[in-house]
Amino acid sequence: MGFYSAEGVERTMGDPQNSRVIIEGVRPQIDGGRFPVKRVVGETVRVEADIFCDGHDALAAVLMVRKGTEGEWTVIPMEFTGNDRWKAEFKVAELGAYQYSLEAWVDPFTGWQRDLRKKLEAGLDVRVDLRIGAGTVREAAKRADGKDARGLTEFADLLEKGGDLQAQSMTALGEELTATMARYPDRSRSSRIPKPLEVAVDRPKALYSTWYERFPRSCSPDPGKHGTLEDLEKLLPEISRMGFEVLYLPPIHPIGKTHRKGKNNNPKAEPGEPGSPWAIGSEDGGHTAIHPQLGTFKDFDRLVKSAKGHGIEVALDLAFQCSPDHPYVKAHPSWFKWRPDGTVQYAENPPKKYEDILPLNFDSEDWTGLWEELRNVVLFWIGHGVRIFRVDNPHTKPFPFWEWMISEVRQRHPDVIFLAEAFTRPKVMGRLAKLGFNQSYTYFTWRTSKQELMSYLNELTGTEMREYFRPNFWPNTPDILHEQLQFGGRPAFLMRLVLAATLSSNYGIYGPAYELHLGEARPGFEEYNDNEKYEIKAWDWDRPGNLKDFIARVNRIRKGNPALQTTWNVKFCAVDNEQLLAYVKTSEGNDNIILVVVNLDVTFAQSGWVQVPLRELGIDPAQSFSVHDLLSDDKYIWQGEWNFVKLDPHRCPAHIFKIRSRLLQEKDFDYFM
Amino acid sequence: MGFYSAEGVERTMGDPQNSRVIIEGVRPQIDGGRFPVKRVVGETVRVEADIFCDGHDALAAVLMVRKGTEGEWTVIPMEFTGNDRWKAEFKVAELGAYQYSLEAWVDPFTGWQRDLRKKLEAGLDVRVDLRIGAGTVREAAKRADGKDARGLTEFADLLEKGGDLQAQSMTALGEELTATMARYPDRSRSSRIPKPLEVAVDRPKALYSTWYERFPRSCSPDPGKHGTLEDLEKLLPEISRMGFEVLYLPPIHPIGKTHRKGKNNNPKAEPGEPGSPWAIGSEDGGHTAIHPQLGTFKDFDRLVKSAKGHGIEVALDLAFQCSPDHPYVKAHPSWFKWRPDGTVQYAENPPKKYEDILPLNFDSEDWTGLWEELRNVVLFWIGHGVRIFRVDNPHTKPFPFWEWMISEVRQRHPDVIFLAEAFTRPKVMGRLAKLGFNQSYTYFTWRTSKQELMSYLNELTGTEMREYFRPNFWPNTPDILHEQLQFGGRPAFLMRLVLAATLSSNYGIYGPAYELHLGEARPGFEEYNDNEKYEIKAWDWDRPGNLKDFIARVNRIRKGNPALQTTWNVKFCAVDNEQLLAYVKTSEGNDNIILVVVNLDVTFAQSGWVQVPLRELGIDPAQSFSVHDLLSDDKYIWQGEWNFVKLDPHRCPAHIFKIRSRLLQEKDFDYFM
Repeated sequence: MGFYSAEGVERTMGDPQNSRVIIEGVRPQIDGGRFPVKRVVGETVRVEADIFCDGHDALAAVLMVRKGTEGEWTVIPMEFTGNDRWKAEFKVAELGAYQYSLEAWVDPFTGWQRDLRKKLEAGLDVRVDLRIGAGTVREAAKRADGKDARGLTEFADLLEKGGDLQAQSMTALGEELTATMARYPDRSRSSRIPKPLEVAVDRPKALYSTWYERFPRSCSPDPGKHGTLEDLEKLLPEISRMGFEVLYLPPIHPIGKTHRKGKNNNPKAEPGEPGSPWAIGSEDGGHTAIHPQLGTFKDFDRLVKSAKGHGIEVALDLAFQCSPDHPYVKAHPSWFKWRPDGTVQYAENPPKKYEDILPLNFDSEDWTGLWEELRNVVLFWIGHGVRIFRVDNPHTKPFPFWEWMISEVRQRHPDVIFLAEAFTRPKVMGRLAKLGFNQSYTYFTWRTSKQELMSYLNELTGTEMREYFRPNFWPNTPDILHEQLQFGGRPAFLMRLVLAATLSSNYGIYGPAYELHLGEARPGFEEYNDNEKYEIKAWDWDRPGNLKDFIARVNRIRKGNPALQTTWNVKFCAVDNEQLLAYVKTSEGNDNIILVVVNLDVTFAQSGWVQVPLRELGIDPAQSFSVHDLLSDDKYIWQGEWNFVKLDPHRCPAHIFKIRSRLLQEKDFDYFM
Repeated sequence: MGFYSAEGVERTMGDPQNSRVIIEGVRPQIDGGRFPVKRVVGETVRVEADIFCDGHDALAAVLMVRKGTEGEWTVIPMEFTGNDRWKAEFKVAELGAYQYSLEAWVDPFTGWQRDLRKKLEAGLDVRVDLRIGAGTVREAAKRADGKDARGLTEFADLLEKGGDLQAQSMTALGEELTATMARYPDRSRSSRIPKPLEVAVDRPKALYSTWYERFPRSCSPDPGKHGTLEDLEKLLPEISRMGFEVLYLPPIHPIGKTHRKGKNNNPKAEPGEPGSPWAIGSEDGGHTAIHPQLGTFKDFDRLVKSAKGHGIEVALDLAFQCSPDHPYVKAHPSWFKWRPDGTVQYAENPPKKYEDILPLNFDSEDWTGLWEELRNVVLFWIGHGVRIFRVDNPHTKPFPFWEWMISEVRQRHPDVIFLAEAFTRPKVMGRLAKLGFNQSYTYFTWRTSKQELMSYLNELTGTEMREYFRPNFWPNTPDILHEQLQFGGRPAFLMRLVLAATLSSNYGIYGPAYELHLGEARPGFEEYNDNEKYEIKAWDWDRPGNLKDFIARVNRIRKGNPALQTTWNVKFCAVDNEQLLAYVKTSEGNDNIILVVVNLDVTFAQSGWVQVPLRELGIDPAQSFSVHDLLSDDKYIWQGEWNFVKLDPHRCPAHIFKIRSRLLQEKDFDYFM
């Protein structure tokens, strides 16, 4: 006579009440617990569930948390929030995996107290009720030790002995008995969720990071000369001054010669053209070699160390594909696909051919050898001090490979961060994030109107996506030069930078094309003309009108304001002008309040009234408050929810206001008095 | 070196591509497959899922369906609907359990055809591609038999042999090869969802039923006399004429004497008062006995049979609780709770006491005995021809009991219908529905404004709830007389009946209080004064002004219009008056179109413009269409989306229009010409 318990586990008759308490609708929970939720050290996990049972019994519920997957649970009481919903939260303090679980049980003592109180208020005879309560207390005494056991037994005796009903009732409902009973719940017939849920905890940089992409080969001070890692090292002070903390290098490996691409993606390179860094591998080596013209491992190690001295981490590109000249092709022919005519299969997206690139065959007969080799490539660079990887086109390699590889690496090095460069369909991007990528490129580049930006940010931060998908906003990349940057000029570059840097706590730019606000596209493409992917550039980095100081200022504002160091806190404000986008971001407890207002119109000045949600910000609407534009350094006193702003894109398309309640901070504003 | 497959199953390295295809976001799916979705015979299950893999490979996906939990699957190809979403559907034809599962795989041949087509269009050399395709065809030939195997081998030879490229390409993309290849997919490395999902299929009455509640003891033609089952039998023709098909009787068992309740819930009955039928059990027997004053089992069996002859099913009340005089109390004291003073524990909701009722202790040491006995009570009445049970307060008994009991009964009798009378919190009502109740009472009674009704119906029919929670709308019950009926008079009774009967395909009324539009409440309560629960009534059923003909007409309209025999198809229409509620319901293929307009104001006539969604209804907005009010028999010709209506609650508060496109049905409207 078998039947199913509330959690789908087959049981036999014998413990009818084990599952009287239902726990369902547990959040967060990705695909029924198949994937962990993501956090960085110091973030909070707020757990909620519907918890209820039949009848009118009182319940108790706890959240249980532990570091790792074994060992003792820390028990946190859950709080009832209405409509059978309970919640509790915990902070994650260390890198690596956490587990959490929920447990709930019928709590007869609390229910008995509740009913006793009602009966006393109604003037009913409670003598029998007191004796029933005594029984419950006596049961708890059996679970207690020493002093508590004796204390509970004395309480039970008191409730049972009759006599002064008034005193007995006071005892029954009193704090001491309540507190002691709470320490000895009967959890023997409690319900738990079927299996613990997991949190993957990253270091803070997975949530707050400022990226700068730069091709080392274009770093030479001599125009026309192939730049080196050493040249790049000399630029570190300026990159650091601009406020960047991740320096991401496109592939630095030897480049193939066969079918090398020329200028502007020309299928045939002219002699002397350097080729695309993504066509990895030549007789000089493959994914664990450095292009000889860039320098040596000594140079690389020094670059990493020197960058560290400037507060910058070097991030490498993982492009798991090969040029036809890659050593793998001869050493491991089974790692590639071969055509019936005996030639090797190049990459293609019919009718387009990419003959300078061979995809790897992850389904090779020797796939274990291939997968392990690729993992070892990552471990190799970790050995050279790299802890951040930008992964090229992960969506064209099998999901199980990434899940396995990332897990293998992070078991050894939980501080490693993988950024997924998958500009593809939403479900595929979501899956890559779920299976382990710590950051993801997004559709930000193509979200330009107010409505598009608000709806995209609400999707990223207001749905379950926020639990596993950490956005990294890039206004440009070597592959992508959006129409707005092509035609919007300097105002567009300023505006998109402020949006990326303040909407998302992870953002990056491809420079110096960005700070030089270069907008010339290859005709008919959403891509730079004379793309650096196919040639060496000589950048006039200090050209008058460059945006370096502006970028430095924005990054300094990010660094000084914790509200901008998370993405999850964005809240949009009403504005009576469709060209103005406004949002507040606040740190926990409203210690740091930022209001950003951006003019999305790159041509005309726009003005309007912005609604500041004062009550949510803890500001008394009857009091004036101060706003300090951290971009312009202008200061204003505002009062009331609705306030006027005007932004001229040709001066500065945005305000980044720091808001302070004057009540708290009056001393800071003496100059207004 | 273990790792996890896409479905959470631990695997060892050795089959990297098994899980390249991801299947996620499967709908419908209740709590990860823990509970079945519900359908009635003839309904459709539309299954959707996100199905995708890495890269650009073409995919194929199938829905697999079977009756029961074993045996062969019927395979239904899924259709791609965009954004990685696939769908397919099936109809359920038989009572009982169905299973469905999803399977998807990489389909190299389709991908190869797609790429070949692009290359041919671009004028590329495809000779090597044809040889690659030949290899794929040859692999399929190995999976085929006989003629198909030979045919595929010949195709492969043709693609491989070189020669007339034009002819080869035609063959490669031709219908015959495509169709033959589609029959021999390589499913050896396909992905399936982790376990099959279930459908619980009920008989049609679970979705479309018209209930009438009546106390047999008030059916005597002689005022003051205790009515009998035989008296009730004589009313069947009139109940049938009113269009009811389920006759639900409050408990018909012997009633306890100890602490018997008197008139208006008086804690002490006067001599001769009959007591509440829910205080079940006396020396005359318990849940398997009939109250002697109602009649005998012979009478009961004849009632059931006679009702059947009138197209009516008798439904009984399952109230699993006992009067202090119930035989169980002596025979099975362990099935009850006992207080320390040796008295038995009565029902209470402090400070209220219900001393005429003892709750059963489902957690009794002899709980197996109790549970089996209660199941046997149900089987007992099934033995007397009952197939529909209204379950009293199921939310005060353990969920596992209901899940076990309903499953036990329906394994033997899949045609049994249980209606949950749980007027409690949403999560609890949802759980009861999920675990097996076939119909559920709802909050309809308390949803009176336009906004409330629309939002409640959208919740019931537009969310996952529709998969497991079948509403049954009751404008009144013996326990509930809503304010609107207390003060709204006859217009309110008409209006709430039309709403219940047309919004929900399951509905019922407690009569004759309803058709006599009795609105007198016990002062301070939302309950009938002089409640029939505590006394015998002599109803003047044919009193002038009664609503019997109106009710009969509404029920006839329901019977004649399939659009009103399901709840899931309601769509609200825009109206420019907040007192007018309008909605369309259509059968599949728009064969039957009903537009209901209800005046929610019980005092004043209201008028306004209703928007009829003509395009969705398949009606050309440029053509006029006919509307026939099935309540008043008035007919109109309308044109365009917006049409004027006016409803006087004192005449009739509603239109139930049948809409016909005049293009199709012109002959029906000769009288307008």
